[in-house]
Amino acid sequence: MAVNLPLPNKDELKPIKGLKLGIAEAGIKRANRKDVLVIRLVPGSSVSGVFTQNRFCAAPVQLCRAHLLERNPIEALIINTGNANAGTGNEGLRRAQQTCDALAHALGISAEQVLPFSTGVILEPLPVEKIITAIPKAITALKEDDWYAAAEAIMTTDTQPKAASLTIQTSTGPIVMTGISKGAGMIQPNMATMLGFIGTDLSIDVDLLQELTREAADLSFNAITIDGDTSTNDSFIVMATGQSPVRIQNKSDPSYSAFREGLISLSRQLAKMIVRDGEGATKFMTIRIKGGRNSAECKRIAKSIAHSPLVKTAFFASDPNLGRILAAIGYAGVDDLDSTKVQLWLGDVWVAKDGGRNPEYKEADGQAVMKQAEITVTVDLGRGSVEETVWTCDLSHEYVSINADYRS
Amino acid sequence: MAVNLPLPNKDELKPIKGLKLGIAEAGIKRANRKDVLVIRLVPGSSVSGVFTQNRFCAAPVQLCRAHLLERNPIEALIINTGNANAGTGNEGLRRAQQTCDALAHALGISAEQVLPFSTGVILEPLPVEKIITAIPKAITALKEDDWYAAAEAIMTTDTQPKAASLTIQTSTGPIVMTGISKGAGMIQPNMATMLGFIGTDLSIDVDLLQELTREAADLSFNAITIDGDTSTNDSFIVMATGQSPVRIQNKSDPSYSAFREGLISLSRQLAKMIVRDGEGATKFMTIRIKGGRNSAECKRIAKSIAHSPLVKTAFFASDPNLGRILAAIGYAGVDDLDSTKVQLWLGDVWVAKDGGRNPEYKEADGQAVMKQAEITVTVDLGRGSVEETVWTCDLSHEYVSINADYRS
Repeated sequence: MAVNLPLPNKDELKPIKGLKLGIAEAGIKRANRKDVLVIRLVPGSSVSGVFTQNRFCAAPVQLCRAHLLERNPIEALIINTGNANAGTGNEGLRRAQQTCDALAHALGISAEQVLPFSTGVILEPLPVEKIITAIPKAITALKEDDWYAAAEAIMTTDTQPKAASLTIQTSTGPIVMTGISKGAGMIQPNMATMLGFIGTDLSIDVDLLQELTREAADLSFNAITIDGDTSTNDSFIVMATGQSPVRIQNKSDPSYSAFREGLISLSRQLAKMIVRDGEGATKFMTIRIKGGRNSAECKRIAKSIAHSPLVKTAFFASDPNLGRILAAIGYAGVDDLDSTKVQLWLGDVWVAKDGGRNPEYKEADGQAVMKQAEITVTVDLGRGSVEETVWTCDLSHEYVSINADYRS
Repeated sequence: MAVNLPLPNKDELKPIKGLKLGIAEAGIKRANRKDVLVIRLVPGSSVSGVFTQNRFCAAPVQLCRAHLLERNPIEALIINTGNANAGTGNEGLRRAQQTCDALAHALGISAEQVLPFSTGVILEPLPVEKIITAIPKAITALKEDDWYAAAEAIMTTDTQPKAASLTIQTSTGPIVMTGISKGAGMIQPNMATMLGFIGTDLSIDVDLLQELTREAADLSFNAITIDGDTSTNDSFIVMATGQSPVRIQNKSDPSYSAFREGLISLSRQLAKMIVRDGEGATKFMTIRIKGGRNSAECKRIAKSIAHSPLVKTAFFASDPNLGRILAAIGYAGVDDLDSTKVQLWLGDVWVAKDGGRNPEYKEADGQAVMKQAEITVTVDLGRGSVEETVWTCDLSHEYVSINADYRS
């Protein structure tokens, strides 16, 4: 049911020199399904990451934070699906540590150089033995040219793998970037998405990479929402292998802004793929709030519209019941909002003028926009010059089916 | 599909002396449907109200606020369904005023003594001529003993009328109270519900009544949520006709606490009826948060659980996928929450202990509770002694059907 989301083209997914991917079937939730991914990085790579703000953050997220905070030279990542290892207490931490230990031992590195990731059901014990058994198979399978299978190996309720590549030309040479993401439900990332990984071959200072990763996350994964549920496992990781001639030490480097733009662009592409494949999605909606006093109020109103079950079901029905959008703007918590200054457009159709129905508005015009698979809602708050955009999808019968059936 | 919500018993709905109800069919949205209700109060009645905090609050809400603020002696109310007169700008205000003018003229009172209410679709012009035409019919129909029909006349997507009565014995005589409410979608009242009206025969100081109305609203209508959408039209009104021998001038009056308890009890009963008749509801859930530092954080966490589409669909499926509740607690925005102090019970079943799965927890026990139509979720935050309760319902296929079809 994904909205305008073609399968990634395998030939266009560029390998990243110094980054190998190995996939295995551990049978964590189901047999005969790729569910473990190992990423091996060349020594000297820079790795940065941002993680969920959920207070019930998963055990692997806690280990990732610790390993990155200690500035360890990260050389391997391990990702499993089928179990989130969240809401699992100290035993969950012990099992995440066992996973790192096993991979480190097999690769001849230390456990602190490993970042672990899990995604799947919460509150159930991680079947760590199955993962440990699968590790040698994943290591044997390691190769640079396997991003498509890697994208498949991290899927849960996703209907298709999500991956993209980008090559940026700079004065010192090209930078190649390839990324994968997953997630279709429990998506309102707060600092990062369910899982997003980007590899690139440039050489970059790790602090600068961390700063860029946070910025890119805010402009991409943190600007999408499917159901308003912030996951316990959100993680977004950028890995730079340093194998290209391009080197960035600080913001004045000539390649810095080209890399920054490329990273944001690729992050947005991967984030939008998650929305397009949102659970049960039939519509892809861009919610653009302009004329705000600050970024926070614009985002607050955009999220209020994007989370409203009434707005989402109206889009599912292609019914221009647009008063529901005004209601969602009104209850977003911007207490001094003057409703008579608010303008609303659906696509190019001016629906609400100065807080009331635009006398020129014809229902047939609204209807024509609502029937499209991709719809932009623009709101002008008329109280400032700040603008923010959020991407979301509709709420369909299929969403209820998926989430009423997911685990059982 | 309402959950354990029998039809009100007509014989048990007590008339309130000094308060008459008149119903008419104006054909606002559909023909042959009760859609206008006039309430006529004896002169000298005390009337108080609380209203939506939505910044796109409806035109009639704006007039109600003004008329109550001016301490006008309110003698009549007029309620229409089929159109919310919200998102209608100045023209909407003019039409709400015309409605008040017409009713005032017909009753020989001033327009400032009228409170108008509308509920239904937003962003469409109020068909005021139809309402004005229906007013004489409603006035002709005025009688004390018609609460059941009044409850029917204010329904929108409600599947059944909601009404209840209560008689309180005090040392100076009995107080009789009867109330009606409506609402099934766009329900996360903020200061009041979609529409709730309570009539009582006691005599009470209007400022004291206003204070009690706010308190009762906080403990009832403001503690329910169906879809997290705060309506543009929420209104909760208490009318005291002063026709019983009971008089309350201040909080030290002997009947004060009995009346306060009765008002809260009746408000809660009416509020819970709204949840039981929530759009598509198959389950009635009580979310009880204890061990909090303050009321705000308890409510925040309760609402986070109550609004999570993932939690709601799991209840619909009777699937004890309870990690979704932990995730919703974790992202509620209580930033210093220590997840290892959190306990979770489903009914009497202890599911999560110290932030992880209770080793004693058996899925079959959780499953047995999930199959019930009424379920209590209890969370102990382990950081204080404050407790709050929120009532909500599940998210079913029927919810999507109702809201994808409602207007078209």
